[in-house]
Amino acid sequence: MQPDAPKTFRLTLTDGVAEVSLDRPERKNPLTFESYAELRDWFRGLVYRDDVKVVIFGSNGGNFCSGGDVFEIIGPLLDKDMKGLLEFTRMTGDLVKAIVGCGKPVIAAVDGVCVGAGAIIAMCSDLRIATPEAKTAFLFNRVGLAGCDMGACAILPRIIGQGRAAELLFTGRSMSAEEGERWGFFSRVVEAGEIEDEARKLARRIAEGPTFANMITKTMLAQEWNMGIEQAIEAEAQAQAICMQTQDFRRAYEAFAAKQKPVFEGN
Amino acid sequence: MQPDAPKTFRLTLTDGVAEVSLDRPERKNPLTFESYAELRDWFRGLVYRDDVKVVIFGSNGGNFCSGGDVFEIIGPLLDKDMKGLLEFTRMTGDLVKAIVGCGKPVIAAVDGVCVGAGAIIAMCSDLRIATPEAKTAFLFNRVGLAGCDMGACAILPRIIGQGRAAELLFTGRSMSAEEGERWGFFSRVVEAGEIEDEARKLARRIAEGPTFANMITKTMLAQEWNMGIEQAIEAEAQAQAICMQTQDFRRAYEAFAAKQKPVFEGN
Amino acid sequence: MQPDAPKTFRLTLTDGVAEVSLDRPERKNPLTFESYAELRDWFRGLVYRDDVKVVIFGSNGGNFCSGGDVFEIIGPLLDKDMKGLLEFTRMTGDLVKAIVGCGKPVIAAVDGVCVGAGAIIAMCSDLRIATPEAKTAFLFNRVGLAGCDMGACAILPRIIGQGRAAELLFTGRSMSAEEGERWGFFSRVVEAGEIEDEARKLARRIAEGPTFANMITKTMLAQEWNMGIEQAIEAEAQAQAICMQTQDFRRAYEAFAAKQKPVFEGN
Repeated sequence: MQPDAPKTFRLTLTDGVAEVSLDRPERKNPLTFESYAELRDWFRGLVYRDDVKVVIFGSNGGNFCSGGDVFEIIGPLLDKDMKGLLEFTRMTGDLVKAIVGCGKPVIAAVDGVCVGAGAIIAMCSDLRIATPEAKTAFLFNRVGLAGCDMGACAILPRIIGQGRAAELLFTGRSMSAEEGERWGFFSRVVEAGEIEDEARKLARRIAEGPTFANMITKTMLAQEWNMGIEQAIEAEAQAQAICMQTQDFRRAYEAFAAKQKPVFEGN
Repeated sequence: MQPDAPKTFRLTLTDGVAEVSLDRPERKNPLTFESYAELRDWFRGLVYRDDVKVVIFGSNGGNFCSGGDVFEIIGPLLDKDMKGLLEFTRMTGDLVKAIVGCGKPVIAAVDGVCVGAGAIIAMCSDLRIATPEAKTAFLFNRVGLAGCDMGACAILPRIIGQGRAAELLFTGRSMSAEEGERWGFFSRVVEAGEIEDEARKLARRIAEGPTFANMITKTMLAQEWNMGIEQAIEAEAQAQAICMQTQDFRRAYEAFAAKQKPVFEGN
Repeated sequence: MQPDAPKTFRLTLTDGVAEVSLDRPERKNPLTFESYAELRDWFRGLVYRDDVKVVIFGSNGGNFCSGGDVFEIIGPLLDKDMKGLLEFTRMTGDLVKAIVGCGKPVIAAVDGVCVGAGAIIAMCSDLRIATPEAKTAFLFNRVGLAGCDMGACAILPRIIGQGRAAELLFTGRSMSAEEGERWGFFSRVVEAGEIEDEARKLARRIAEGPTFANMITKTMLAQEWNMGIEQAIEAEAQAQAICMQTQDFRRAYEAFAAKQKPVFEGN
C-alpha cells in the first residue's frame, strides 16, 4: 500500500515510519482550514493501516508549527456565527482525537517555533524531543482566547503538572526546551542537526517492537484516562490477555530461549 | 464598586489586582473559624465581580499562613459531635471550592510558614511563587489527622506527582522552596524582598490579558479534572467557541494586523 | 498475633514494620504463580491486622525483583486459552489491588533489577527509595506485550507524568535511579549499604504517626483517583471528620499543649 499524496503537508514513509511535517516553512508552517482537515483525515486513516507503525511529526526549515494562521484562520473566524465557530473548534479538536486515537505511537520532533495549535500537536503526541531552539507556547490568551484549546486544560497538566500548566495557560509565555525537558514535556533535547536522526532512531526502535501490543498501549493510555484504579487494573487484565494471544508474545519467548533478539511481526 | 472591608484579613484592590493576606503576623497568620468563613464568602463573591481580575494571596510579616489555630480551632473541635465536625470540615472544604470556583486566577506568594490549611490555600491557588524561606507542610498527620484535608489527596498529586504527594502526606514533612520549584509546586523562587513585586508583575500580566477568557480557562481546568479525553476535547470546543464571540478576540486580531499590542477589556 | 510463615517470600515483623522481600536472589528474585498468589493473599490480609502498621518491600541480594519468570510463567502462558490467560492477568492485577487496598503505607526499597512485575510492585507502593544501581524497566513491550500491565498505563503517568510514562512504556527502556528521583518516582537515592536503614527510618517515622489516619490517607488517595474536585473535597470533609473523632487527634492536641511529642496509638 502506498501512502496517499497529501496536498497540505509533507509525507514520507520508510520501513513503517511515516514522517509528517507542515509545508510552508517560509511562514513557519502555519495551519490552515485545509491542513487541519487533511491531517485529521490522514491520522484517522491510520487506524486501518498496517504499513505505518510509528509516526514522526517533524519540523521543517527550523520550525515545527506556528499554529493557526492569523489571516487565513483568525480573520475569517471573526465573521462566523456560533454554528460556524463550533464547526471550527470541533474540527481542530477532531485532529487531536485523531492523533490520540490513531493506534500508532506519534513522536513530535520539535525545532524552533511550536505555538498555538502547533504546541497542541506536540502535546497530544506520545513522545516529544526538541532542539535547544524549541519555543513552545500555548499562547491562546495572547490572542484573546482561553487556554482550553483542543484539550490543553486536560492533557497539558497530565504531562507537566497542574501548576506549570496553569502558568503557561494563564500567561501564554513560551516554555524553553530546557524547561520542557526538566518538566517532562520533552524526553530529551538534542542539537538541531541531530534531531531528525534522533527521532528516526527512536521511531525505528518502537517500530521494531510488537506493533499490535504498542497499539494496545496507546489505546489504553487514553482509555484509562478517566477510570478508577480498580477499573483500570481490570481493563489492563483484559487488554494484556488479548496481547498474550499474539504470535509476537510467542516470538519473544522463543527468541529469549534461543538467546536471540526477537523479530516482531505485529500480530 | 468598592471592595468590602473584611474583618479577619487584609485586602487591597489596585487596578483589578486584589491582594489578600491574613492579619495576625505575630502568630504567623493562623486561620480561625471567622477567617475561614469570611475568606470563603469573599472568594464566592468574586464570581459576580468585574472589578477584581486577579487575586494575590500574599504573606504578611514573613509568613504565609500557619493553618488552623491550635487553641482556637483544634481545641474546640475536640468537643464537637459528628454533626459539628462535619460542619467544620465542610466549611474548610468550601473555602477551597470557593477559590477553585471564583473565576479569577489566584497567585499565592509564599514566604516563611505555609502549613496545614495554609499549604492548602497555596495548593488550590492557580500559580505559586515562593521565597527561599518558604516551608510548606501538609502536616495533618502530625496532628493526628489524615492527609485528606480540603482536597489534598486529589489536588496535590496533580501538581507534584502521586509519589511526592504521598511522601509529604504520610510524613507531614516540610517541602523546601527548592523542592517546590523542582517539583512544579512553585513556578519560581525569588528573594523575600522581591516576592511582592514579582507577584504583582505576574498579576498585572494576567490582569491585562483577556479576563473573560481567563475565567473560562480557570473554569475548564476544574471542569475537565475528571473527564475522558474525548469529552474534554468536546468541552473545550464549546468553551473556546464561546470565547471566539468576545470582542477581546477581535481586539487581538485587529491589534496584530495593526502591529500593536492588544488592549483587552474582558468582554 | 504472629505473622504467618509465607512459603515464597521472606517476611519479618518488628514493632509494626513488616519487611517483605522475594527469596530467590540467585535468580534476581523472579515472581512465580505461587508467589503472586501468596503475596496477594498476604497483602489482602493486612486490612484486618493491627500488628502491621507499615510495610517495606525490600530487595534481596542486591536485586528487588526480576518480574515474572520467563520459564516458569511466560512459557506456561503460551499454552493457555483465553480463560486461563485472563485468570493470570487478573491474579497479577489483584496483587496491585491488594497493595493499593491494604490500608498500610508501603515503602519500596529498590536495589538492582526492578523490572516487569517488579517495576509494577515498586510503582504501586506508596513511597519508593532506591540505590544508584536501581534499574527500573516496564519492559513489557520487549516480551511482545503491551505497556498496560497491572495498572501501569493508569498509575505510572500519575507518578512521573504522561510523557515520561509513555516513553518508558513504548520503548521498554530502563529508568535510572537518577532519572527516577528527578521524575518523582523515587523520593531519594541512597547508597546500597544504607537503603535498608533508610527504609526502616522512614517506616518507623510513619509507623509512629497516627496509623488509623494514615490508613484513611491511603484509602482516599485511591478513592479520589477518579473524582471531580468538588466530590473529592466533600469526600475529604467526611473522611477527615471521622479522623477528628479518634483519640489520636486528642493526643496530638494534648501533647502540643503540654509541649511534648505526641504518642499515637492508632485509634
